[in-house]
Amino acid sequence: VLKAVFNAFTEGFSEPILVGNEDEIKTCLDECKIPSNIFEIIDVKGDVAQQSKKAVELVACGEAQMLMKGHVDTSLLLKSVLNEKSLRTGRIMSGVALIESEEYHKMLMLSDPAMNLRPNLEEKKQIIENTAQVARALEIIKPKTALLCAKEKVNPKMPETVDAGKLVEMNVNGELDGFILGGPFAFDNIVSMEAARIKGIKHTVAGDADIIIAPELVTANALYKSMVLFGNAKSAGVILGAKVPIILTSRADNDETKLYSIAAASLIAQSNQE
Amino acid sequence: VLKAVFNAFTEGFSEPILVGNEDEIKTCLDECKIPSNIFEIIDVKGDVAQQSKKAVELVACGEAQMLMKGHVDTSLLLKSVLNEKSLRTGRIMSGVALIESEEYHKMLMLSDPAMNLRPNLEEKKQIIENTAQVARALEIIKPKTALLCAKEKVNPKMPETVDAGKLVEMNVNGELDGFILGGPFAFDNIVSMEAARIKGIKHTVAGDADIIIAPELVTANALYKSMVLFGNAKSAGVILGAKVPIILTSRADNDETKLYSIAAASLIAQSNQE
Repeated sequence: VLKAVFNAFTEGFSEPILVGNEDEIKTCLDECKIPSNIFEIIDVKGDVAQQSKKAVELVACGEAQMLMKGHVDTSLLLKSVLNEKSLRTGRIMSGVALIESEEYHKMLMLSDPAMNLRPNLEEKKQIIENTAQVARALEIIKPKTALLCAKEKVNPKMPETVDAGKLVEMNVNGELDGFILGGPFAFDNIVSMEAARIKGIKHTVAGDADIIIAPELVTANALYKSMVLFGNAKSAGVILGAKVPIILTSRADNDETKLYSIAAASLIAQSNQE
Repeated sequence: VLKAVFNAFTEGFSEPILVGNEDEIKTCLDECKIPSNIFEIIDVKGDVAQQSKKAVELVACGEAQMLMKGHVDTSLLLKSVLNEKSLRTGRIMSGVALIESEEYHKMLMLSDPAMNLRPNLEEKKQIIENTAQVARALEIIKPKTALLCAKEKVNPKMPETVDAGKLVEMNVNGELDGFILGGPFAFDNIVSMEAARIKGIKHTVAGDADIIIAPELVTANALYKSMVLFGNAKSAGVILGAKVPIILTSRADNDETKLYSIAAASLIAQSNQE
């Protein structure tokens, strides 16, 4: 994480503030061969819970515009965020993966590969709403948003298609704002105009989606990883739903993904300020 | 379908018997510019239900070794299969996709992208058992089989990880035969040794799976389509669980996929005879 933060700093799109035990931080910086005097360090002697709280306070008071997880449990950091009322938006927190592959003609957002196991209808609505932050940051006015299922028809035996039908209806009724919503769709008809043509699907979202909403976490998680590993895609991950973007990278993410995640969060933070 | 059948015939791995209204079949053959005198045609004048029944009888009596859907509803054909007791194995029917991509070092089988929406534990066990037919046809002695989830730890909040843990236990206890079973695994640790290494996962299945079992249909369906579209993979699909392999290709499948599906089913049918 420190290396990614250092790279983001040298690339010029992020100015880090390191929060924690100053001595430990300096040791880590030394190990990473990063000069220990270029970043602001806020020394918090207590335990990681107190350190998390302090970092969250910095974004709450506007001192910082985004939050990144260092060497701390994800659940602990998120608890600190949830405890800070001024950071709440009224929506649940959800993850989004940004994916750029040569196999697709534009950036693709996929939600939620990280936070919500089996979102219900209302949670899916909020997951969609959360992606508006990213779309705005990427200057996409009305993102084409596809509801992923395995079929194109609403079928009571497939609850995810029923939810998809209801979400499209909610969008038509104006309960969602700023999206072009389509679904249910199988994956091929979301990303391939050719597949949609063969299936006779005529919808502005088909084959041209900006955003894919998966019905549950395992699908989103496997799909995003397959696009990275089989599609050689570049990816970034950001947590949405709080007033500021949050970055929770994992050990398994490569350096590139960590850097891109900071870049994506920076864009979101910047558009939040506008 | 007729074109694929013709290609499979000229490639020499399948000898088709066409079942249905002979006049209609001949018209179709004409339209496809396939000589109408090279295939055996069994004339059934009745409705499609009777035609399906006749085709199923041919595989039941051993006259044919595999069944392929033509211009008939999938549900109707499968109903005919289920009505034919001699074709039953005691296991549910399930789909398997065979995937070959330059991004992976061997053939990958993925189940079930086609039949079972949310299989329970017993159904998952049978879905695994069904894949044994394909592994045998591909001469894989003990297929490395990965249980796909989003995490590596069994967690009561994620039912699919609980099922994965139980299936691994059942395998250890000898309730499954002939598999090396591992899971729960996230997708990256199933197909990438590098990802598994970084995560510290040491398991013979990690990064080297022959078979992936998805927790439910949408995941398998999206995953297989993403490997085809983003990973430029070649794919085939077969329905397992009856005494003979069944091919249900869809309009959206390209000619290659239809041909490969017949090839895969032929291999399975051949190994069934041995």
